[in-house]
Amino acid sequence: MQIAILLYDRFTALDAIGPYEILSRLSGAEVVFAAEQPGPVRADTGMLAVTADAALADLPHPGIVLVPGGPGQEGRMADGPVHEWLRKADAASSWTTSVCTGSLILAAAGLLDGRRAASHWLALDRLRAPGARPAGERVVIDGKYVTAAGVSAGIDMALGLSGRIAGTPAAQAIQLMIEYDPRPPLTAGSPYTAPPDLVTSLRMRSRHPG
Amino acid sequence: MQIAILLYDRFTALDAIGPYEILSRLSGAEVVFAAEQPGPVRADTGMLAVTADAALADLPHPGIVLVPGGPGQEGRMADGPVHEWLRKADAASSWTTSVCTGSLILAAAGLLDGRRAASHWLALDRLRAPGARPAGERVVIDGKYVTAAGVSAGIDMALGLSGRIAGTPAAQAIQLMIEYDPRPPLTAGSPYTAPPDLVTSLRMRSRHPG
Repeated sequence: MQIAILLYDRFTALDAIGPYEILSRLSGAEVVFAAEQPGPVRADTGMLAVTADAALADLPHPGIVLVPGGPGQEGRMADGPVHEWLRKADAASSWTTSVCTGSLILAAAGLLDGRRAASHWLALDRLRAPGARPAGERVVIDGKYVTAAGVSAGIDMALGLSGRIAGTPAAQAIQLMIEYDPRPPLTAGSPYTAPPDLVTSLRMRSRHPG
Repeated sequence: MQIAILLYDRFTALDAIGPYEILSRLSGAEVVFAAEQPGPVRADTGMLAVTADAALADLPHPGIVLVPGGPGQEGRMADGPVHEWLRKADAASSWTTSVCTGSLILAAAGLLDGRRAASHWLALDRLRAPGARPAGERVVIDGKYVTAAGVSAGIDMALGLSGRIAGTPAAQAIQLMIEYDPRPPLTAGSPYTAPPDLVTSLRMRSRHPG
């Protein structure tokens, strides 16, 4: 099972690496990080580069497609080589997936028409224009389309997907090996649990960035 | 505040990238991935490379030192340039931290003598020989030494550390931006919650690898 993870300039690293850490442990899985051109791709903070080992053109038929989010997503909303690759890869994939604002790229490529989809809580509304149906859930499964909420939600998404692909015992073994028994020391991880003032202030900032 | 994350061949990617995703969002933080030599460093699966932007020698005095774990840790147990760098960096650091079996490297470098420390649940016993006191907890704070359990525990560690460094509201804002409201679809994340047969089988496998 080949798993293609799309990289692009200013992606959010954990969106990609969280699911990678789980899916790469599936028996027989081959994860390939791919970008328009092979080589190092810098994440949104500028402080980290991950190598794209393949060009998109080298991976015409991955079994799983995974699209991370990140501020660089805005440069991937117009049609072009990434959309073309996504459509071709999706035509043969078993699962087409995204984390965070990666769902905006899938939607812009025309792959989420009429489908329920998750995204970062600050970006959910932006799923509507390209034809998807925003769902404020951590992981949304609609047919073979699996979309996760912001950043860290990709870990839950990948673990659930692993269970569907390889069975519960295999997914449990992966969960135990990465000790995924989360104990957040704070309880501000969703707009429903965070202090309302913080939610409001981040909403304002996202509408008027910079 | 400069945060140096050590890379070495066959590190576990999420050990490094989980904390990076949180600590890089602290105001004024500069995360630098560093290895003995700059350049791409391949993770334990062979399927991912992260760029070391600096050589260890370029970072004599980071404010935070972070050591990820991974199978490649076994090549870092003998004294050498990594241990020398760790001891020098630790002499001036505000926090010296590790994720997973990264604590075995810290211990081998002589930095955890007599200190309580966490590690991957399968590696805890190996902390004893180099003089640390194994603690089966998700995150252990002993003075300025902060050690996390396996792989995903680095996320909880970094969020807690962010609260101590920048205050609770700043850490809450980071938690909300990465939507860290974990919902594991399975409950096998620790040896206390996983099916006992699975725990036994992974223990056997780790004692007789390959």
